[in-house]
Amino acid sequence: MAPLIPYPPPSGIDKYLPPPQHTGKLFLTLTYATSLDSHLSIPLTQVHHSGPETKSLTHHLRTLHDAILIGVGTAVVDDPGLNSRLPGTPLTRQPRPIILDPAFRWGVTRVSRVVQTAKRGEGLAPYVFVRSEVEIDGDERKGILEEVGGRVVVIETLGGRKWDWRDLSEKMKELGLNSVMVEGGGGVINDLLAEGNLPLVDSVIVTIAPTYLGQGGVNVSPPAVLSAADGKRTLAVRFRSVEWRILGRDVVMFAQPDL
Amino acid sequence: MAPLIPYPPPSGIDKYLPPPQHTGKLFLTLTYATSLDSHLSIPLTQVHHSGPETKSLTHHLRTLHDAILIGVGTAVVDDPGLNSRLPGTPLTRQPRPIILDPAFRWGVTRVSRVVQTAKRGEGLAPYVFVRSEVEIDGDERKGILEEVGGRVVVIETLGGRKWDWRDLSEKMKELGLNSVMVEGGGGVINDLLAEGNLPLVDSVIVTIAPTYLGQGGVNVSPPAVLSAADGKRTLAVRFRSVEWRILGRDVVMFAQPDL
Ligand SMILES: NC(=O)c1ccc[n+]([C@@H]2O[C@H](COP(=O)([O-])OP(=O)(O)OC[C@H]3O[C@@H](n4cnc5c(N)ncnc54)[C@H](OP(=O)(O)O)[C@@H]3O)[C@@H](O)[C@H]2O)c1
Ligand SMILES: NC(=O)c1ccc[n+]([C@@H]2O[C@H](COP(=O)([O-])OP(=O)(O)OC[C@H]3O[C@@H](n4cnc5c(N)ncnc54)[C@H](OP(=O)(O)O)[C@@H]3O)[C@@H](O)[C@H]2O)c1
Repeated sequence: MAPLIPYPPPSGIDKYLPPPQHTGKLFLTLTYATSLDSHLSIPLTQVHHSGPETKSLTHHLRTLHDAILIGVGTAVVDDPGLNSRLPGTPLTRQPRPIILDPAFRWGVTRVSRVVQTAKRGEGLAPYVFVRSEVEIDGDERKGILEEVGGRVVVIETLGGRKWDWRDLSEKMKELGLNSVMVEGGGGVINDLLAEGNLPLVDSVIVTIAPTYLGQGGVNVSPPAVLSAADGKRTLAVRFRSVEWRILGRDVVMFAQPDL
Repeated sequence: MAPLIPYPPPSGIDKYLPPPQHTGKLFLTLTYATSLDSHLSIPLTQVHHSGPETKSLTHHLRTLHDAILIGVGTAVVDDPGLNSRLPGTPLTRQPRPIILDPAFRWGVTRVSRVVQTAKRGEGLAPYVFVRSEVEIDGDERKGILEEVGGRVVVIETLGGRKWDWRDLSEKMKELGLNSVMVEGGGGVINDLLAEGNLPLVDSVIVTIAPTYLGQGGVNVSPPAVLSAADGKRTLAVRFRSVEWRILGRDVVMFAQPDL
């Protein structure tokens, strides 16, 4: 892990962040770093498209949320640390990692980065959300997570394998989490940007790096939306209160969905 | 046509524009307006995703180029005017519209917007590039173009239907055009951003509007690129000298390809 260079965060972005007083509602920030062609990553390749200034911003944002959520696809591919590596971040400001893993297919071990990070006291241990049909008793991975303070959280599945984001929000509140930063990957982001889920999203923070990853990467683009007025396609997501910040070579959009 | 509101262009962008003295090489600017999910448009729907400030910039840029080039797909779908609607633009500062139409499938008529615009003296008449295999003698459309000062330009096709961008550059130089602004659509842009064609591109100017169009639109994403070092995928396009400008609700990237 290359050391993280701290940069001052941009000013005037408070309204896009969890309020200092809890409102009773889970505050959900959707954030990711992408390329001009809206790709998160290239399959089987580690590409670093965003710069040190926006990476530092991400780690700053992590300290301002109670939790950080990813899909199992990202856990498997990236083996992420899911903590804030900003120098001097106390453990009380570290976010709780949450991994959506309905079928519990994440092969977490004692050397997984997030487990190591928790063991070193540099981050919190993960909560892995799995569906109730999964047999977890006697699963070695449960023990590995619990050793460092993590848990397997069983969530009822009504119908298919996908959880409703309303239920996930409730679950996070029950776990004492008042804010969550959803970081990816493509599956999770496109799901949250879909018409039905967008009302749960409080802010969207997107870093755009000045590069093209090229066709065949993990793409962010929400499902198409049809206009209620004429049945024709219309913009899938609109925003209000848009602010851009130029940070190093990248640009960052801060916005609130316009429902 | 809603009247165009003029806004002052951003400062400090001269190096991304055709030089005042011709260099002997065709100066090629690639420019388009896109959404966060890198979509140019939604099929069968007119969506206006970019704002008046960046629209004004596009019309300013048009006055600084000898020609403006689009693919036939855009001509068919959008029926574009292809002139600068900045108030007070003299005809001498209007760009020459060029339409790449190898099979001559553009159904241009006397009421096509670009023909009307030329007739009113508010823009130049189009040059339509068609391949030599197309029978144009006696084609009514040839007459319609010539009436307003336009032409059908026949270009030899070696092999397939696609022209090499080197040959197109040469052709434009022969026609006395020293700079061209390539505006779209998806087919043309992805083709020019491909590894082999990128050396012909002098600058890239991309407007990003803070919205998602949603899946199934016309997408900009160049072909994947493999690294010469290890055969693995790598960034498809890198840039040097990147500058961002925030214009209204949109952001604009000015950049030069890093070859
Ligand atoms: N650039 C960035 O900011 C960034 C950030 C994060 C990730 N990434 C990249 O994103 C890629 C991974 O993206 P991805 O799309 O493959 O995977 P992903 O979004 O990380 O994970 C998707 C999986 O999570 C589970 N899931 C998501 N929503 C769910 C729901 N509502 N209910 C139940 N389960 C749910 C499903 O697991 P099942 O399949 O088991 O049902 C789903 O297939 C990686 O390449 C990573 O590098 C980039
Ligand atoms: N947002 C923006 O800035 C913007 C700007 C322009 C257009 N657009 C949108 O883009 C969409 C159209 O895009 P598109 O991809 O369908 O079409 P397009 O890129 O406008 O045209 C593609 C066609 O042009 C011809 N062509 C392109 N390169 C060629 C070459 N090297 N040699 C020979 N012929 C070549 C081919 O014609 P044949 O198929 O006949 O071979 C090709 O299929 C429209 O929806 C339009 O609204 C958006």
